[in-house]
Amino acid sequence: MIRFYNAKIMTMADGCAVKEGELWTDGDRISYIGETPAELPVFEREIDAQGNLLMPSFKNAHTHSAMTFLRSFAEDVPLQTWLFEKVFPYEDRLTPDDVYAFDRLAILEYLASGTTAAFDMYFYPESSAVAFTESGMRLVFCGSINGTAADVERLNDQFQKYRNMHPLVKYRLGFHAEYTSDESLHREVARLAQSEHEPVYTHMSETKREHEECIARHGTSPAQYFESLGMWQYGGGAYHCVWFDEADRTVFRKNGLWMVSCPCSNAKLASGIAPLKEAYEEGVQLALGTDGPASNNALDPFREMYLGAVLQKLRHDDAAALPAAEMLRAATVGGARAMGLTDCDILAEGKQADLILIDLSAPNLQPPHHIPESLVLSGSRADVKLTMCAGKILYENGQYYAGISKEEILADTASRIARLTG
Amino acid sequence: MIRFYNAKIMTMADGCAVKEGELWTDGDRISYIGETPAELPVFEREIDAQGNLLMPSFKNAHTHSAMTFLRSFAEDVPLQTWLFEKVFPYEDRLTPDDVYAFDRLAILEYLASGTTAAFDMYFYPESSAVAFTESGMRLVFCGSINGTAADVERLNDQFQKYRNMHPLVKYRLGFHAEYTSDESLHREVARLAQSEHEPVYTHMSETKREHEECIARHGTSPAQYFESLGMWQYGGGAYHCVWFDEADRTVFRKNGLWMVSCPCSNAKLASGIAPLKEAYEEGVQLALGTDGPASNNALDPFREMYLGAVLQKLRHDDAAALPAAEMLRAATVGGARAMGLTDCDILAEGKQADLILIDLSAPNLQPPHHIPESLVLSGSRADVKLTMCAGKILYENGQYYAGISKEEILADTASRIARLTG
Repeated sequence: MIRFYNAKIMTMADGCAVKEGELWTDGDRISYIGETPAELPVFEREIDAQGNLLMPSFKNAHTHSAMTFLRSFAEDVPLQTWLFEKVFPYEDRLTPDDVYAFDRLAILEYLASGTTAAFDMYFYPESSAVAFTESGMRLVFCGSINGTAADVERLNDQFQKYRNMHPLVKYRLGFHAEYTSDESLHREVARLAQSEHEPVYTHMSETKREHEECIARHGTSPAQYFESLGMWQYGGGAYHCVWFDEADRTVFRKNGLWMVSCPCSNAKLASGIAPLKEAYEEGVQLALGTDGPASNNALDPFREMYLGAVLQKLRHDDAAALPAAEMLRAATVGGARAMGLTDCDILAEGKQADLILIDLSAPNLQPPHHIPESLVLSGSRADVKLTMCAGKILYENGQYYAGISKEEILADTASRIARLTG
Repeated sequence: MIRFYNAKIMTMADGCAVKEGELWTDGDRISYIGETPAELPVFEREIDAQGNLLMPSFKNAHTHSAMTFLRSFAEDVPLQTWLFEKVFPYEDRLTPDDVYAFDRLAILEYLASGTTAAFDMYFYPESSAVAFTESGMRLVFCGSINGTAADVERLNDQFQKYRNMHPLVKYRLGFHAEYTSDESLHREVARLAQSEHEPVYTHMSETKREHEECIARHGTSPAQYFESLGMWQYGGGAYHCVWFDEADRTVFRKNGLWMVSCPCSNAKLASGIAPLKEAYEEGVQLALGTDGPASNNALDPFREMYLGAVLQKLRHDDAAALPAAEMLRAATVGGARAMGLTDCDILAEGKQADLILIDLSAPNLQPPHHIPESLVLSGSRADVKLTMCAGKILYENGQYYAGISKEEILADTASRIARLTG
C-alpha cells in the first residue's frame, strides 16, 4: 500500500473540484480517498504531497508511438513530399525490434508528461505489447488495416490475440481510414463489430481533400457513410474530425462516439482547426491525442490542451469560446473512456490507480486562482512530479522506475536511427 | 572564470549551426569559444556539459511581467468584460511593493524557461528595476505613456532616469498605443526620439477594431501614420502587428523596425494570426514576446516559438510555411536586437555571457536529426538545465541562485494576492 497525504485531490468524478485530503493505493487500485483517519494501516511507502495536486493521469487517445524515429527528420516541407519521400520509405525499413525500441523512446516522454495510456496505431503489435507491458504503461491498440474485405481476417486475428493478452493491453477494432480501404472492408468491419459487440475507430475527415473525396465516392461524409453501414452500433470514435459539420457531429452525439482531436498535428500539417466548441456545446464526447511524434512533434498533453483551447478562440473570434477546463477533461477522463479504459478514468476507491502528482508550487501555475484553467493555459509537462500507472510509480522527480533505463534506450535508438536513416 | 566543456555550441552568429567545443566566461563576458586548448587557465568552476547544448538565452521582447497576479483570475470571458471588470479595477489597487513582488514571481518563470531579458511595459518602474537587478536579470523598460503631449515630459523624465541607471537596465522610448493617445502626444514623442536619436516602440494593430479605427481617424494604418510623423527616424518597433498588410510591412522593412509577435496572446484573446510568413519572406525583422501572463498565460518562449511556427502553417494552409528555425532566431537573437541589447544577442568572444544549457538527452528532443527544428517543434521549458545572465548562473537544475528564494517569493505574493483580489 502506498499513501499520499497532505494532498490536493481533483478526482474529476464531479467536474474539476479540488479537495484536500489523502489517497491510498493497494496493489493496482485506489483503496481510499478522504480525510486522514484516526488510525492508519501500515504502508510500504508514505509520500508527503506537500500540498501538491493528485489528479487522473493523461490518456493519449491517438498516437503512432514508434514514429519517434522520424521526429524532426524533415520539417517545413509540403505534406505530400513529407509522406511519400520522408516517411513511407523509412517506415518500410523498420523491423519489429525497431518498433519495440522506438516505442520505448516514446514511453520515456509519455511518463515524464504524466501520460499512462496510449491509443496506438502502428506496425508490429507484438513489439509494442512487449515495450508497454515491460514499462508498466497501458497500451490500447487500434486496428489499422487498409485494403479490402480480405484484410479483415487479419484484424480479427489481432483482436482475438490481444484483447485479453495482459491486464495493461487492450485491442479495439479499427481500420486506417475511409480513403485507404474499399466498401467491402467497411462492410466487413461493421459486420465484425456487430458480431463482437465492439466499438470501431478510424482516422476521419482530417483533411478537406479526403473529406470531399469521400463525399464524391459515397455521396456523403465519412461519418454519415459509416453510420449508414451500421459501423457504430456498439460505439467507437474517430481521430481528427477537422472537417466535421453539424450533421457529422449529430451522428457522433446520437451514437455516443468519441471525437478524438489532435490540435497540434492538425496545425503543424495545416489540416485545419476542428470544431471543438460546437461539438462541446452540442454534447459530443471529446478526447485529445497527439498523433504521431513526427507530425506534432511532441507527445505532450499540456500542449494539446493549450492549443485545443486557444485555437477555438481564434476560430470563433471570441475569447470566451470553449471553457479551458473542458480540455482538461478531454485529456484525462475523456481519453480514458474514448479508448474503453473505464476503470482508470477518474480517481475513486476501487478504480485503477492511474494518477499523477502536479507541482502546484511551479511559478507558471501561480497564483492558484483556478487550478483547472491554470493547468490548461499555463501548465507544462515540467510540472509533473510523479506518474503512477496501475498502482506502480513509473516516474518521479525526473527519474524512471520499473526497470526503465533512459540511457540504455537513448543508446539503443541512436544506433537504430543511424542504420535506418543513414 | 567559468568553463563549460564537452558541449555542443550553437552561437547563432551564423544561422543555427551546431559545433562541438567549449565556452569560457570571464566576469560578465564570454572569453573563449573553441576547441579545448593544450593549456587551460584556472577556473572558479568547470561544468561538464555532457554533450548538451549551449546557446543564446531567450529574450522576451514584449511583456507586462507584474501581471502574474491576474493569471487565471478570469478565464473564458469576453475581452471587454475581462479588461474592464477583471483587470483594470485590480491594477488600480497595486502598490509599488506589489509590482516588485509580482515581477519577482515572473522572474522565477523567466529563469526556469531560459529567459534572461524582458522588454517590459508596466507601472512603477523603480520597483521593477529593483526586482530585476536584485535577481541578476536584464530589464528593458518600454515607455508606456498615454494621453496628450503633456504626458511626454514624464516619458522623458523616466528615460533620463533609467537609461544608464544600471548595467542590467535600459529604457526605450515608447507609448501605450495609437488609440490611447492623441496626435499631439505622437508628434511630441517623434520629436523627442529625433532629438535623442532613439528608437520608439508601441502596441500596434493588435485587434482589427483598433487598426480600423486608426484608419478612420488618421486616414491610414498606425504603421504608415507614425512613419508620416517621422516617429521612426532612429528605428524601433511594435508589439503584436496582427492586422498588418504589405504596406505596413514595407514601412517596417524600410525603417529597419522590429515586428514583435505574441502568438499565444493573440490566439487566447482571439486577436488573430500575425502575418509572420510574409514578413519573414519580405525581410522584416522578427522577435517574439509573451505579452502579459494574464493574457497568455505562460511566460514560456518554447510555446511562443511553437505557436509562431505552426499557426503560419494553418494560416497559409501549407505545412511548409515559415521555417521553424526562424522562430528560434526571433526568440533569441531577434529579441535581443529588438530591445537594443546588441551586446548579448549571440555567443561570441567579448559578448555578454547570456546563455542557456539545453538537455539534449530529453526524450522529446530525440532523435537529434535537426536540433533547431527540434527546439521549436518539440522543445519544452523542462529542457532548460541552466540559465546564465551577464556571466552569473541564476538557475541550474531546478534551483535558483543569486539570492532568489522561490519559497519566500511564493509566500509573499500569496498574501498580496489575497489582499488584492480577496
